[in-house]
Amino acid sequence: MYAIAVEPGAGDPTVVEKPIPEPETGEALVRTLRVGVDGTDHEVISGAHGGVPDDEDHLVLGHEAVGVVEDPNGTDLEVGQLVVPTVRRPPNGTNHYFESGYPDMAPEGEYVERGIVGGHGFMAEYFTSPADYLVPIPESLASLGFLVEPISISEKAIEHAFASRSAFDWRPESAMVLGNGSLGLLTVAMLVETLEFDRTYCLGRRDRPDPTIDIIESLGATYVDSRETPVSEVPAVHERIDFIYEATGYAPHAFETIEALAPNGVGALLGVPSSWEFEIDGGALHEEFVLHNKALVGSVNSHRGHFESAIDTLSQLPESFTDDLVTGVYDLDSFQDAFVDDDTTIKTAVEFDTI
Amino acid sequence: MYAIAVEPGAGDPTVVEKPIPEPETGEALVRTLRVGVDGTDHEVISGAHGGVPDDEDHLVLGHEAVGVVEDPNGTDLEVGQLVVPTVRRPPNGTNHYFESGYPDMAPEGEYVERGIVGGHGFMAEYFTSPADYLVPIPESLASLGFLVEPISISEKAIEHAFASRSAFDWRPESAMVLGNGSLGLLTVAMLVETLEFDRTYCLGRRDRPDPTIDIIESLGATYVDSRETPVSEVPAVHERIDFIYEATGYAPHAFETIEALAPNGVGALLGVPSSWEFEIDGGALHEEFVLHNKALVGSVNSHRGHFESAIDTLSQLPESFTDDLVTGVYDLDSFQDAFVDDDTTIKTAVEFDTI
Repeated sequence: MYAIAVEPGAGDPTVVEKPIPEPETGEALVRTLRVGVDGTDHEVISGAHGGVPDDEDHLVLGHEAVGVVEDPNGTDLEVGQLVVPTVRRPPNGTNHYFESGYPDMAPEGEYVERGIVGGHGFMAEYFTSPADYLVPIPESLASLGFLVEPISISEKAIEHAFASRSAFDWRPESAMVLGNGSLGLLTVAMLVETLEFDRTYCLGRRDRPDPTIDIIESLGATYVDSRETPVSEVPAVHERIDFIYEATGYAPHAFETIEALAPNGVGALLGVPSSWEFEIDGGALHEEFVLHNKALVGSVNSHRGHFESAIDTLSQLPESFTDDLVTGVYDLDSFQDAFVDDDTTIKTAVEFDTI
Repeated sequence: MYAIAVEPGAGDPTVVEKPIPEPETGEALVRTLRVGVDGTDHEVISGAHGGVPDDEDHLVLGHEAVGVVEDPNGTDLEVGQLVVPTVRRPPNGTNHYFESGYPDMAPEGEYVERGIVGGHGFMAEYFTSPADYLVPIPESLASLGFLVEPISISEKAIEHAFASRSAFDWRPESAMVLGNGSLGLLTVAMLVETLEFDRTYCLGRRDRPDPTIDIIESLGATYVDSRETPVSEVPAVHERIDFIYEATGYAPHAFETIEALAPNGVGALLGVPSSWEFEIDGGALHEEFVLHNKALVGSVNSHRGHFESAIDTLSQLPESFTDDLVTGVYDLDSFQDAFVDDDTTIKTAVEFDTI
């Protein structure tokens, strides 16, 4: 079979030929339909993040997949069932994070991530996976199933952020997403369509006309240009925000979020920046944190429950939104186009097969 | 009657004579037994924090009180009932924070705090209060009832911090209190005695012999000298900490907490520093926040439910601990001694009357 792989740091991904994998006991064989591309893939390709499996010189990419069960191999799955695989797997044997159902809370070293670090991904014509890590999805979502994984990331972040506000009668009205990449836009859609915030904002640094600004506005959200209105000035220009979702990886945003939050508000941090020293008014931020009962919650990855919530969320997102979001689906012959990252590209996927 | 008051910023508190207050409808008249002194009182006295009520030139101090109902005035309370008053009151009329039972979540402007800002405190022979803000306590706690308010502050912070970890199977084992003031020591006792952390640390900057270090060690906790082991080096010298409670008001601690936390850990911030610019490795902190699912929660004040929990907690603290913690109880003639702040003073109170 064909797969799309990289030697991390070596540059562009290439097509490699590999044997069709054979499922072990408890695993099913899945025929891949589509696999999405996101910023993490670009970081893996550049070598900024991730790593090859032990004893391998390459990594098969892809962690946002949807496929069809080809061989249930004695598991409870059925031939033809549509599934989305979760991403984390135990590194050797298992550990209590996986046993308790919270692999997303495992610290480094206690997991591999398929397609990212230590485990081959799903950008191949077939992949195997323990059936426990394959989440069934309805056939109606086949073409968009590769969005389940990124949505699940936001399901988790939102769950954790809201949990931090569960000890009182929190009534958030305003939300802001920092970052207008595909994850940011999916989250704007969630905040507007399923969480029903009264007022939702999305911060970016793009000039009009721009397709991401068009999406933000067609959802009824407000675009905020960070070059005109830095995060710390959002309260003065717009309002103080109850829930802020950071998906830029721009480290000052993590700290400016404290200023931009409304009293009793919470910020979810999802970006993964590198070391960067800068000055903050730590005293004022600390005081603001305390006197206004604010919270910051870091969030990475997601567990099966978040995938199940994400399937429900995906089914509620308007078709007009997903049509605009997915700017390209490419077959194996033109797979490189799925990795182009320019201002007209929002979300792409590689298509290996159709249902 | 006599009361202890300040003109904020004017220097030392003085005894003033005032009429015994008359309870309005819904209010009871309380005969004061003891009122504790804490760091906030010192900030109010220095003028760093707080303010007099409208149309007044002085503020009666005191927000950590225990008293006896002298006149229920038609409320559900009974003559002779021991009570502890909560601190926050609505500024004018009411608002939804008070109506929903979460005055502790009200932002600035939506509350007054008795003895701190905008409302007279409880350091007087009598005070009045709406019965709803008087929490009954058992007679056995009469002499220590002034500790209920500070314990309630930690009850809230701990509730909010733990809520932030409620979306997964959190199993904290280690805790660290930053600060060995009276609130820090009360919190160490709670972590050891009622929350039963396996390993509890308390950070300070005192040389031995020192009474606070003796208390920390007699509770079975470990003293950490911040001059030898800064917060950021706690993981290297001791271990990464699941729950950190910051009560120093030293702003760098808020950010060093992110480094010292174990994966999936949470820091509760309670200090209230002033503006102070300094450099941080914001990129590394942001990354650590995200990749290890950490959380920071600011917390101020407490609501009636926290007072009720605090009464239960207080009844479980060992007498040997409270004996060591309370270093002086002074009557009105020597009330100045209760405001002395030196290395042999831990927790003091002014006694207005006995049961």
